[in-house]
Amino acid sequence: MTRSLVSIEDLHNDEIEAIFELADRFLDEMATTGKPHRVRGRRTLARDFILSTLFYEPSTRTRLSFESAMLRLGGQVISSAEVTSSSAAKGETIADTVRVVENYADVVVIRHSHEGAAQVAADYTDLPVINAGDGGHEHPTQTLCDLYTLRAAHRQKQKNADLSFKDVTIELRGDLKHGRTVHSLVYALARFGARIIPSHAPGCDLPDHVKQRLARDYGCLLLRKQEIQDLADDDFPEFVYVTPEGPHQRTLWTGEEADVWFKLSLDQRQKLREMKSVDFFYATRFQKERHEDGGSGEEYPAIDAAMLKNKRYRQTKVMHPLPRVDELSYDLDEDPRGVYFKQAAYGVPVRMALIASLLELFPSLLSQSREARYPLYSNAQGLRCTNGKCVTRQANEARYVIPKFWIVDETPLTVRCVYCDFEYEPRIVSRGSTKKYTAEIDEWREIYDRSPRDLILYLNEQEAIDAGHQLRRGRKRPTGHRPLSEPLATT
Amino acid sequence: MTRSLVSIEDLHNDEIEAIFELADRFLDEMATTGKPHRVRGRRTLARDFILSTLFYEPSTRTRLSFESAMLRLGGQVISSAEVTSSSAAKGETIADTVRVVENYADVVVIRHSHEGAAQVAADYTDLPVINAGDGGHEHPTQTLCDLYTLRAAHRQKQKNADLSFKDVTIELRGDLKHGRTVHSLVYALARFGARIIPSHAPGCDLPDHVKQRLARDYGCLLLRKQEIQDLADDDFPEFVYVTPEGPHQRTLWTGEEADVWFKLSLDQRQKLREMKSVDFFYATRFQKERHEDGGSGEEYPAIDAAMLKNKRYRQTKVMHPLPRVDELSYDLDEDPRGVYFKQAAYGVPVRMALIASLLELFPSLLSQSREARYPLYSNAQGLRCTNGKCVTRQANEARYVIPKFWIVDETPLTVRCVYCDFEYEPRIVSRGSTKKYTAEIDEWREIYDRSPRDLILYLNEQEAIDAGHQLRRGRKRPTGHRPLSEPLATT
Amino acid sequence: MTRSLVSIEDLHNDEIEAIFELADRFLDEMATTGKPHRVRGRRTLARDFILSTLFYEPSTRTRLSFESAMLRLGGQVISSAEVTSSSAAKGETIADTVRVVENYADVVVIRHSHEGAAQVAADYTDLPVINAGDGGHEHPTQTLCDLYTLRAAHRQKQKNADLSFKDVTIELRGDLKHGRTVHSLVYALARFGARIIPSHAPGCDLPDHVKQRLARDYGCLLLRKQEIQDLADDDFPEFVYVTPEGPHQRTLWTGEEADVWFKLSLDQRQKLREMKSVDFFYATRFQKERHEDGGSGEEYPAIDAAMLKNKRYRQTKVMHPLPRVDELSYDLDEDPRGVYFKQAAYGVPVRMALIASLLELFPSLLSQSREARYPLYSNAQGLRCTNGKCVTRQANEARYVIPKFWIVDETPLTVRCVYCDFEYEPRIVSRGSTKKYTAEIDEWREIYDRSPRDLILYLNEQEAIDAGHQLRRGRKRPTGHRPLSEPLATT
Repeated sequence: MTRSLVSIEDLHNDEIEAIFELADRFLDEMATTGKPHRVRGRRTLARDFILSTLFYEPSTRTRLSFESAMLRLGGQVISSAEVTSSSAAKGETIADTVRVVENYADVVVIRHSHEGAAQVAADYTDLPVINAGDGGHEHPTQTLCDLYTLRAAHRQKQKNADLSFKDVTIELRGDLKHGRTVHSLVYALARFGARIIPSHAPGCDLPDHVKQRLARDYGCLLLRKQEIQDLADDDFPEFVYVTPEGPHQRTLWTGEEADVWFKLSLDQRQKLREMKSVDFFYATRFQKERHEDGGSGEEYPAIDAAMLKNKRYRQTKVMHPLPRVDELSYDLDEDPRGVYFKQAAYGVPVRMALIASLLELFPSLLSQSREARYPLYSNAQGLRCTNGKCVTRQANEARYVIPKFWIVDETPLTVRCVYCDFEYEPRIVSRGSTKKYTAEIDEWREIYDRSPRDLILYLNEQEAIDAGHQLRRGRKRPTGHRPLSEPLATT
Repeated sequence: MTRSLVSIEDLHNDEIEAIFELADRFLDEMATTGKPHRVRGRRTLARDFILSTLFYEPSTRTRLSFESAMLRLGGQVISSAEVTSSSAAKGETIADTVRVVENYADVVVIRHSHEGAAQVAADYTDLPVINAGDGGHEHPTQTLCDLYTLRAAHRQKQKNADLSFKDVTIELRGDLKHGRTVHSLVYALARFGARIIPSHAPGCDLPDHVKQRLARDYGCLLLRKQEIQDLADDDFPEFVYVTPEGPHQRTLWTGEEADVWFKLSLDQRQKLREMKSVDFFYATRFQKERHEDGGSGEEYPAIDAAMLKNKRYRQTKVMHPLPRVDELSYDLDEDPRGVYFKQAAYGVPVRMALIASLLELFPSLLSQSREARYPLYSNAQGLRCTNGKCVTRQANEARYVIPKFWIVDETPLTVRCVYCDFEYEPRIVSRGSTKKYTAEIDEWREIYDRSPRDLILYLNEQEAIDAGHQLRRGRKRPTGHRPLSEPLATT
Repeated sequence: MTRSLVSIEDLHNDEIEAIFELADRFLDEMATTGKPHRVRGRRTLARDFILSTLFYEPSTRTRLSFESAMLRLGGQVISSAEVTSSSAAKGETIADTVRVVENYADVVVIRHSHEGAAQVAADYTDLPVINAGDGGHEHPTQTLCDLYTLRAAHRQKQKNADLSFKDVTIELRGDLKHGRTVHSLVYALARFGARIIPSHAPGCDLPDHVKQRLARDYGCLLLRKQEIQDLADDDFPEFVYVTPEGPHQRTLWTGEEADVWFKLSLDQRQKLREMKSVDFFYATRFQKERHEDGGSGEEYPAIDAAMLKNKRYRQTKVMHPLPRVDELSYDLDEDPRGVYFKQAAYGVPVRMALIASLLELFPSLLSQSREARYPLYSNAQGLRCTNGKCVTRQANEARYVIPKFWIVDETPLTVRCVYCDFEYEPRIVSRGSTKKYTAEIDEWREIYDRSPRDLILYLNEQEAIDAGHQLRRGRKRPTGHRPLSEPLATT
């Protein structure tokens, strides 16, 4: 089975660690004197392989980083820096482009302005696909570089441990709404147990679907200072995302937010009380090209040498995925706490390790199968994603992409677009076989268990009527609620 | 002598077969398990060579296909995806660009929006030049891939034969007017004896100059169903292009079209009577970027699974040069009759074989000389091509390109632009030495035989007068008509 | 110490000769039969290295030339043909881009529309940086190719000599104002002692700062025919730039221009009297994209076969950096005096030799240090360059680039922008420590000698007042003028 990297979720924790160990090895063997973060020279490992970049959005940094990684591995590159002005201009779909390019290359790196585009590419080729950014959705290789940077700094304290950031406090700054790098990152931080302080500019908070996914998928919870007033110092941040330790106890997490504190282990509570300083800043550029709704960040304070004089920040290392504009001052460029250029340098060994893994140059690094976390609902009729930036909403792609949703919760029934992660609560359930709908939403389970393809969901009654379905008459059947015992296979 | 591929005509039939056999060999040795059409790995054959792409029109697919082929051969690539925004924007001509780039590379691949541009490039460099599409004119490497795809399917029936498609029926669909891939293809199909059914969308018929060339160069004739009404089934297509077998009997082919049937051999007539099904569809995209004159194809039926339920099409394999828009449904993507993704895959081994041939990595594949089919007329004064898309009509190129025409017929005198293949019937003949013109058009032959450079042709009297020529007074000399006994050497 | 090539001044004369000898060697070993100027094949010398192009302005020729050179050396390339549409569009500065890309590559080639941009890049990376053109400023690798072409022609006469063009007459034609290739070239010609005849189109004379630098840095003087009327033939050109031989006698050169003749050695005077013909034309394109002020060159005569019938030009070799438009006729393309395509071909071996030198593949070619010619003045306050095209004037770069000036003369005090070479005569001197200014400009020297960082210069009093400085009261101190005895170290 070919493995791709569309979302940071596509890699198990131990796979991420295996990739990082391979990156360590490349650095050990290839870094230059005085620059332990920078790879030099060329291997012959990937001599027989070609990497193709397909960039529908222009990018210098990310594209060159992949190309350098492939060349340093000894491979070759074919590159398309502006697909939009060629194939796409002639109306070619992502599926067709990737099914042609799979004949020219051995691994494909795609950047696209539509959310979920990399998933579509991965669905239609048997080559490994690497998502180099899909709209405001994810940018998982940036996240790998970010995690590797955190780990490199963290290793200094905690040697030879499995990858974990459970004692690490990271403050995310700036535009948390539009920056795809932030979205991929927070999921990973939650997985590895870091404490996350969201410090967004006005109008640039984390999107709701990201917050929902943090809670639902990782059990990451928002702790508000006001709720633990007696326990917190003045210094304690207004908001912290924390992930309770221990087994995955989802059923417990439906209570009030005031309960968050009590879901944490005693050890976690103690460490939070002692939390005096921030270990990392993660600053991001204001993604003006994605802003439709203000949120300019003009009043938002830049990170600079003066800010780092605050006692909470004296030891804070500063990360930034670059490019920066005004949110990060040049006066930290020579400061050892500014690790953002190292972070950029790590892009090469980390991407080398990723490419080598996906091309199976070191065959045992990645497992041969991926289990789906949630059951899948998919039907050409019925519910469609309403996110205007989702790839499934683009006229060209909608001709062949069938909507797919993960069933992420049952009470209330909640589904998540497989492509862009937007979540929905359908209110109407119907059957393809009978075209009779009902608002008895709990009936979905019975239909799904018998024949998943017969199930049709709608957001509301009007949609069902517009699609020619009719209200089902007759007695309401009582439906028992049955928890999802284990994940169902994906199609 | 350096060989180039500007037109599919630049390759003899046996050279095409030799290239295909080399492509077979690459596939035999380099294809992966389960994907016999897809090349993997890298050779070292072309280790010392650099291929340069010069794309004046953007393209992802074709450019990447060439780059992959060169890399798979072990060579290297320098690439210019958008020449128009750099050199050409500064006013550089094709001749200058290619004379500079010949110092940087060993083979040049050019795509350009003007018809004949690749010929100009080939005229001004001693490197092999490959035409990757020149306006609406030709796209000969696509044709090679098309022929290779046809041959791969055909081989299943007829092993080890010389390349021939004389029992093959192919239906061309869609935009036959603007698609350069179709133009290159029909010439090749005629050469190899296929039956061609033109099934164009309204307003998108084959251009007249293509039809003329089909008849003149290959003896390919249009058979109309209405003319053989008694012989044809209801199923018989309205129009079929057929190429009579046997020796090249041009003098016979001046009669009425009703005679076509009787120019065919008895065997051909019998096989046409038995023709019940179409072997191949060749679908093409509506080239909206070249349409000036309607012909949108909006009402034209797409090829889809439903159409292939028609008994004539049940065995029909579907080809498409891609990209597609609406003219070919996604519902055939998994159908074994849809061979268009294989066709795209063949692009790599076929282009590898072509590049290897032109670089003489296998020296005996191509012959060292090409004979011209027709005598050449060329004069800086006099007749100019009137095709607004011809490279000779572009202000920048017209500064140095001297018009050239093949003399393709004598009665009436007919010449064909060497660059774009448009044909003209000059009505006025004059001499550079005397500047005296006459309408006694047959005199051209005598002047040409004595001194080809003295001959000046005009389309009409006004052009001659505008150029300062005067009507020649005196007795009309009788001029005997003498057939062209054999081709004259090109300049 | 990493060496870069930002200006042709960055190479000593003997380093230029060493690079040329290496280029000779590449040609000796790699040129093909019949094409002694054209490199073929690939070495493995640079097998472990990656070259990155960063082109903020589109270019086909120059970019492909570098890429070919790197590939012929056996290296690999990552290429960004249009940085402006990606990183720069997001607001990234040159300093940040180059500090990221230094992790991906081993040598960087940059082209930019702003003057001094390559210097900024070199300031912010520890990789070698090659300037492939920065606005209208310099294009030093073109100059290397030009010098190599001159040398190749000159060698035929004068074997095994050190590089010198002291008996060579070169006539520069066309747009001497906007063509950066000309600016880099005239400095080099002056260094190597050539006679330069400026034959510019109306409105396209050499810029003042170039003329000033010619005189100041190289002692190159303008000799006017009218001033030596008795000595000159009618044929003698109206203007010639000549560089007096012998020791650098700057103090002598402050007299009237009529004295120029008498600054020349007797031998030089004699040879000027005998000068009957021009050895080289150097033609340039009218840089319409940089014209703001007329100077179209439409009336300016093109170099063509007819012009070369003039007896002064019968032996004249014609050079052109290409691309050409109308200033050089196609009728010289086959003429052995037209060496412009050879000049383009030399781009590959010369750039190969340059890259190999900068990557230290032949370690002893370049020296390990560069002495500054002039002392440096640099202060974040005070004088700023007023050239609107200077990189220091661009809002994005001005956030971090501190103005720097070479102190090129003392009487009057004259400084030259390190980035774009524009020169200024500050009239006000102040101190950062006291913020008291004075018009006693000679005081700069005393402040500078004590603490270079305390010195603040202004062009005029208003600038000082606007910056909050106050007029210093008290007695004028007499200040002695002391010549700069030796160059001061750069920061």
